[in-house]
Amino acid sequence: MTKKAPLPTAAAAVESDSERPVVALISAHIDMSFMRGPIAKAMPEADIRLWPKDDVTQADVALCWRPPHDVLGEMKRLRLVHGIGAGVDNILSLPDLPDVPVCRVVDPNHARGIVEYASWATLFFHRDFDVFQRNRLKRAWVQPRQRRAANVTVGIMGWGNLGRAVGSALKALGYTVRAWARTAHEEEGIEFFAGDGERAAFLEGTNILIALLPLTAGTNGILNADLFAGLPKGAAVVNIGRGELVNEPDLLASLDAGHLRGAVLDVFVQEPLPEDNPLWVNPRVFVTPHIASMADPDVIASQFVENIRRAFAGEAVINEVDRTRGY
Amino acid sequence: MTKKAPLPTAAAAVESDSERPVVALISAHIDMSFMRGPIAKAMPEADIRLWPKDDVTQADVALCWRPPHDVLGEMKRLRLVHGIGAGVDNILSLPDLPDVPVCRVVDPNHARGIVEYASWATLFFHRDFDVFQRNRLKRAWVQPRQRRAANVTVGIMGWGNLGRAVGSALKALGYTVRAWARTAHEEEGIEFFAGDGERAAFLEGTNILIALLPLTAGTNGILNADLFAGLPKGAAVVNIGRGELVNEPDLLASLDAGHLRGAVLDVFVQEPLPEDNPLWVNPRVFVTPHIASMADPDVIASQFVENIRRAFAGEAVINEVDRTRGY
Repeated sequence: MTKKAPLPTAAAAVESDSERPVVALISAHIDMSFMRGPIAKAMPEADIRLWPKDDVTQADVALCWRPPHDVLGEMKRLRLVHGIGAGVDNILSLPDLPDVPVCRVVDPNHARGIVEYASWATLFFHRDFDVFQRNRLKRAWVQPRQRRAANVTVGIMGWGNLGRAVGSALKALGYTVRAWARTAHEEEGIEFFAGDGERAAFLEGTNILIALLPLTAGTNGILNADLFAGLPKGAAVVNIGRGELVNEPDLLASLDAGHLRGAVLDVFVQEPLPEDNPLWVNPRVFVTPHIASMADPDVIASQFVENIRRAFAGEAVINEVDRTRGY
Repeated sequence: MTKKAPLPTAAAAVESDSERPVVALISAHIDMSFMRGPIAKAMPEADIRLWPKDDVTQADVALCWRPPHDVLGEMKRLRLVHGIGAGVDNILSLPDLPDVPVCRVVDPNHARGIVEYASWATLFFHRDFDVFQRNRLKRAWVQPRQRRAANVTVGIMGWGNLGRAVGSALKALGYTVRAWARTAHEEEGIEFFAGDGERAAFLEGTNILIALLPLTAGTNGILNADLFAGLPKGAAVVNIGRGELVNEPDLLASLDAGHLRGAVLDVFVQEPLPEDNPLWVNPRVFVTPHIASMADPDVIASQFVENIRRAFAGEAVINEVDRTRGY
């Protein structure tokens, strides 16, 4: 284990009473108090406040998940906004987002969870567990012909660190892997397709599509009728990116028309998925409650605290998001 | 590719008309005609006969899956009985089995299919997909706390080439892996337990039990109430070995009592699983129709034909089963 040298300026600043960091935990959707302990452990001097119970207008930094409108805009001392996961679309979408750095969490264990989920979902379709799940209700003993993993092509949309981790895990399991991203990439054993021009070719040969794109203006609703029609009949869709990537009515239509074989979905346009959403009961949809992977609270805390120290020291923060790209 | 030198004695013998091998395909349970093409391709001179349509009493060799009683015993020229998979218990159990070599198929792709199945089933329990499957019916959005793979111990019963392949695949996925077998083994990163004396210790620390044992007098019904009680509360069971390893009423009792978390079963005491078997509808059981892995028909044919040539040449056959051990 390497021990990091402390940043002297930041440490000095943080230890002075006037610069005791005021930390706001803000979410309109989940209880953020689970971050209180890990932050206090990583930065005992922090003054941690939980919105909406506590007053956060004087906070220096904010750790957020789906923050409400009109809260960050009122924080006049704010120098840093931090997410708790890999995606910060839930923060960037705020109309009143102050002009301060926005950072995300990059956790190697986060990738591990995504890899587990993607592996399970890929095997689910490749080895016909989706068929067995339905046949169970009919008590039907039907043995499909076994396919080799090499004859199944998994197409990954999005080639960030999560896409890359999923790609190499599925390659190790024997699948044929291809990927599509906005820009060109290169990696041994993976066929790449870039941009709108190569999208049709990418889709045409994909048996199992895994969406791992960040949510941006360009990717919102990208999994729509047009895209599904570009996949071969019998293709399956796995969404571990963001719910808004998928046009849900288009997905249901393609499933019900028998074009798509099935879908495994972890994220949804509205979460929790409303009780009356037809995705819950569609026999070709496997719903999971946004659990593919959570960053470890201790990892979130350590990266957040590292960035607090950097912000107070006037240094460049880590894992800052490019607001124009959205990731 | 290395080209095998032909076995001159065998080739000569086989090419003579009097020694044209008569091959019987025999099963009381499945249609064995799927093996006709692959065998004809590997040995064009073979005279292939399909029981019960054709007369097989003059056959020299038999390829079998669950053969009926009273057929092999009548074949006076028989010099070799061959299975189509890794397990030949379905042949060894015949009371009238002639005293000729019994061989099984050892297919590296067979191990791959078993690894895929075991990985899927392990992830199914580790990542709570079993819970989501049930929650879907209630439209319940419940997020369990995520566990790291390293904190989940998978216990493999049986350490043949399939158990070994599953063990190393699950280790690569990050799980803690232990194994139990009749005799002691050693392999880096895997904790071994041997024989009756170490069975309790093995079970005590196992979260997901994977049964990959051969079916012998000693393993018949080994997964019974006593064994389940030795597993910690909340453990899961995966059977990819043989149906008869499991005492099915004991399994259902342990599931219904809430001691076991669930079971993924590919094999059953009676196959196809009868419609009135309660395993079909138990919400904690995932039934698959004996599909974990089939050896490739071309691989079966090539090993079978290799052994026909060896038997005709008076040479030792490959993959012969030890009748006393049962595998």
